[in-house]
Amino acid sequence: MASSEPIAKKQKIETEESLLEEIDSCQNEIDALNEQASEEILKIEQKYNKLRKPFFEKRSSIISKVEKFWVTTFINHPRISSILQDQEEDCLHYMTKLHVEDFDDVKTGYRISFHFKENPYFENDVLTKEFHLAAENQSATDFNQTSTSSAIKWKEGKDLLKELQSKPQSNKKRDMEHKSFFDWFCDNSDPVNDDLAELIKDDIWPNPLQYFLVPDIGVYNDEESDGDSE
Amino acid sequence: MASSEPIAKKQKIETEESLLEEIDSCQNEIDALNEQASEEILKIEQKYNKLRKPFFEKRSSIISKVEKFWVTTFINHPRISSILQDQEEDCLHYMTKLHVEDFDDVKTGYRISFHFKENPYFENDVLTKEFHLAAENQSATDFNQTSTSSAIKWKEGKDLLKELQSKPQSNKKRDMEHKSFFDWFCDNSDPVNDDLAELIKDDIWPNPLQYFLVPDIGVYNDEESDGDSE
Ligand SMILES: [Ca+2]
Ligand SMILES: [Ca+2]
Ligand SMILES: [Mg+2]
Ligand SMILES: [Mg+2]
Repeated sequence: MASSEPIAKKQKIETEESLLEEIDSCQNEIDALNEQASEEILKIEQKYNKLRKPFFEKRSSIISKVEKFWVTTFINHPRISSILQDQEEDCLHYMTKLHVEDFDDVKTGYRISFHFKENPYFENDVLTKEFHLAAENQSATDFNQTSTSSAIKWKEGKDLLKELQSKPQSNKKRDMEHKSFFDWFCDNSDPVNDDLAELIKDDIWPNPLQYFLVPDIGVYNDEESDGDSE
Repeated sequence: MASSEPIAKKQKIETEESLLEEIDSCQNEIDALNEQASEEILKIEQKYNKLRKPFFEKRSSIISKVEKFWVTTFINHPRISSILQDQEEDCLHYMTKLHVEDFDDVKTGYRISFHFKENPYFENDVLTKEFHLAAENQSATDFNQTSTSSAIKWKEGKDLLKELQSKPQSNKKRDMEHKSFFDWFCDNSDPVNDDLAELIKDDIWPNPLQYFLVPDIGVYNDEESDGDSE
């Protein structure tokens, strides 16, 4: 009896081993299906990115004809407004276009572009901030995010970041993460928690009109006596 | 000249109004495409949920033949292990099956079920914890999440939550959010930040084998002298 014990134990282990192999083989089937699903979803996202594109382009070209569209939209957005400094507000009057795009494979990142006309502050026509996702390990849920932003070519004496440093403690809200809009733009130290970039991508870009139109639009109030209130 | 000014102003405003209407009409096209995309993605998720199902079921039935599969998996998971109390660990020896499923429309929530065989702790065969998402407003990104969990019918003198209350300050890690596994299970006060539920859904359920197999599996070490080291 005693001599058969190690054999029984070994058999039990081999049974467990073969069960674990069976689990692993189920797992491989599930993983393959997950990958197929991701690929199909990716194709749909790419398809709709293409379908949406002409409407975003049309929207951009109309927006460029509306005076102060982007500066108004940004001022009206409570989160952006909380970090916007007076001179930055003036600077954003020269902004003509916002553009947000996923990189072609959608999953690896996105780019935010701020287009400016000739302005007293910097030479750049476009300031871009890009976010790149790199898979950190085999688990598809962990990504290592990095970001980069255009070097701003400030004009003589117009560096708004320098202005900021020389200013005394700001009287703006305390719990803001960044001292100013350009401080945010230039900061790539914590791209994983860049909620302002996400807000531009997921909140403003999908529908900027809702912020442009809110709050009360003084200029329309003047006209209400015309009976043309809509 | 002076009398024509109000007309010029009004024309300018009407132009802006018509531009804003054009933007709004682009926006409607974009929204419609977003909705179509969501529907297509939902269909793919539903299709793959169906395709994955038989493999998850097969996996469950094999797992139920592996002794201590779930208790081992939970003990080996650093986050769950950090809140697992000794008696809970004993209790989880009776757990035979874990099941996680999206509700049929995928977007509205999910259910985690813990199946138990006859055990000294409670009468329930299954303990379920469900998460329901309800859209809070028109923006598709804001949801109001609620959760509910089965009432545990503790057996006489076996209420592990009562045990916990009468115990002095735990000597387990400090930064844990919950005092114990069943404390987590029964707590529905902050469903939006229930990272333990998310971890079960997104980390353990997709691939429990990785945790079952890690760290060193003592029982295999005994056999390494057989030269059967894999
Ligand atoms: Ca205006
Ligand atoms: Ca075992
Ligand atoms: Mg635009
Ligand atoms: Mg199972």
